[in-house]
Amino acid sequence: MIQFAINKTVFLQALNITKRAISSKNAIPVLSTVKIDVTTDGISLTGSNGQISIENYISVQDENAGLLVSQTGSILLEAAFFINVISSLPDIVVDFTEIEQKQVVLTSGKSEITLKGKEAELYPRLQEVPATTPLVLETKLLKQTINETAFAASTQESRPILTGVHFVLSNHTELKTVATDSHRMSQRKLQLEKAGDNFNVVIPSRSLREFTSVFTDEVETVEVFFSNNQLLFRSDHISFYTRLLEGTYPDTDRLIPAEFNTSAVFDTANLRHAMERARLLSNATQNGTVKLEIKDGSVTAHVHSPEVGKVNEELDALEVTGQDLVISFNPSYLIDSLKAVASEQVKVSFISPVRPFTVVPNKEDESFIQLITPVRTN
Amino acid sequence: MIQFAINKTVFLQALNITKRAISSKNAIPVLSTVKIDVTTDGISLTGSNGQISIENYISVQDENAGLLVSQTGSILLEAAFFINVISSLPDIVVDFTEIEQKQVVLTSGKSEITLKGKEAELYPRLQEVPATTPLVLETKLLKQTINETAFAASTQESRPILTGVHFVLSNHTELKTVATDSHRMSQRKLQLEKAGDNFNVVIPSRSLREFTSVFTDEVETVEVFFSNNQLLFRSDHISFYTRLLEGTYPDTDRLIPAEFNTSAVFDTANLRHAMERARLLSNATQNGTVKLEIKDGSVTAHVHSPEVGKVNEELDALEVTGQDLVISFNPSYLIDSLKAVASEQVKVSFISPVRPFTVVPNKEDESFIQLITPVRTN
Repeated sequence: MIQFAINKTVFLQALNITKRAISSKNAIPVLSTVKIDVTTDGISLTGSNGQISIENYISVQDENAGLLVSQTGSILLEAAFFINVISSLPDIVVDFTEIEQKQVVLTSGKSEITLKGKEAELYPRLQEVPATTPLVLETKLLKQTINETAFAASTQESRPILTGVHFVLSNHTELKTVATDSHRMSQRKLQLEKAGDNFNVVIPSRSLREFTSVFTDEVETVEVFFSNNQLLFRSDHISFYTRLLEGTYPDTDRLIPAEFNTSAVFDTANLRHAMERARLLSNATQNGTVKLEIKDGSVTAHVHSPEVGKVNEELDALEVTGQDLVISFNPSYLIDSLKAVASEQVKVSFISPVRPFTVVPNKEDESFIQLITPVRTN
Repeated sequence: MIQFAINKTVFLQALNITKRAISSKNAIPVLSTVKIDVTTDGISLTGSNGQISIENYISVQDENAGLLVSQTGSILLEAAFFINVISSLPDIVVDFTEIEQKQVVLTSGKSEITLKGKEAELYPRLQEVPATTPLVLETKLLKQTINETAFAASTQESRPILTGVHFVLSNHTELKTVATDSHRMSQRKLQLEKAGDNFNVVIPSRSLREFTSVFTDEVETVEVFFSNNQLLFRSDHISFYTRLLEGTYPDTDRLIPAEFNTSAVFDTANLRHAMERARLLSNATQNGTVKLEIKDGSVTAHVHSPEVGKVNEELDALEVTGQDLVISFNPSYLIDSLKAVASEQVKVSFISPVRPFTVVPNKEDESFIQLITPVRTN
């Protein structure tokens, strides 16, 4: 029967990471528990919602954890409740002792709390990822790529494949990441320093967003392992499993235009704020659009809501080239795309009022490109 | 037709205070608007939900406001929407110009936003409070008194009078403030430095909580005016009106015990944390109680939930006097009462397991007293 002592703060941090995979409202009741496996080497904390699974390891070698294992074993405890109890304990050290009938006694200072646990055997088996050669990725770069693309994935289940982000590795070092909800698209290309086996997978965007919360920037690199229907991101302490989406991702390369008739360069923050003002009123219009007018080198934004009022604004374009143009679109898509751009200036390029336009950082680097589909008005 | 220019930040702050009285879901649609009255002396911003009304004044004398009034008038604008628009404007100065058909043009930098307003005559008349001599109260002291009592008021509408806080001024300087939901009671007595006319009113606790948010500690004193069914708190810039509750407040003086059989002194924070741990498990019990056991000078807390587990904890009592005792109660009431106590130590005094017990700061000062009713178990 399990017995160990541990630093409360370290234990709580690890539990809170594992908890990110745990949903209290799961169709499979046992998935509301955290699985605690204690060996002489350390403690492993496992949580899962069936889509994502997180395994978090605290080693007896970790000096901050002050982990002393006296007896080993495995047990399940209601995650949310257990974490609340741990966080409420008075002392910096928690003693964790399993007693008869899968009960756990937590002792800390003069406080003694007994909790009822469950047999570890009730926990479903996390699928094993085959021991292939992993791809090694810089965490920061991977998180940036996710932030640049995942937001453009669909949130509607009508075309499930579009709720994922398409990750493709070709020629062992060329990584392409793309997401689209069919109204807008975001694509980042990266040249990897370390080569890997080519792959072509669609990762749920929700899993990727969790990934960015779980792996802090202190984790320098993650190893990526693939199986048929699962992917594993692994660092020293954390194993993050996610299911992959099944099906063929649409061909997005053919959507990216090569030639344009009009282009304008903006300060990214200025353009975003102007679009945020426009959105306040466009939300109250029938088609929810802002009208952009490019004429004689100046750019103006217009919204007219018969109910609420109107916006007229001259945008500070830093550079305008090509033909005059009037185009209408949902300002939310442009706002989202500008949030994803780290560069201080962006270049927006158009073909015609009815063809998608592109948003790229205003640099020679064409490895990050976004597409937004206009809305036909009148 | 109105025309003025104003500093955006000052305007926004004033609007956000007024907005606290405005609910977007009001049965009277016009109450979702803010009323703007512009005179040559300044601007008044009025919001109301029918229970509370807030009038906020920005003077042309206020240097930070940079207020320049060119033309006067009154208008109504959708509050939430108008505030969003103001906060989104690009420049530090906003120009506000009324045009035909109750429209308002806001100009800031290169942005021009036109909003549809309404006739000011549509706004209901706020009841006038008679020009009696006001009571002058120190804001900080009044806010403290509210924080010490209002939480104990009922949130249930079954006995509406108990949703208020009873304020009584006797002998022109003796202020008594008391609230109870019939399970617990909190009473603060104050000796005022400045005398006032005696009064006896019941103020909705919700209004008092809004009061504490609206009046910052920078406002040194407030004047309090009474009418039959309304009360006005007034500072230099802000007039805060609230409806009073009708009916007779129950006699609470007779509830306060004079003699006790058992007393214990605790560190306030320690006792609160112990009760928070107890509550984690008592929430999962049938009657939601913690059992306190005072025996031979030591105090222990116990919760037993057949479903979830149990708590046993020795409390660090600093002093225990009187008879042994076992008493059960809802730990939430004790936690709330301890949150209201600023003193580092509290004294808890008991008569018997079935009579209310008191919580007072452990000082000679008996002007703040709380009562908690125990729960009879078995």
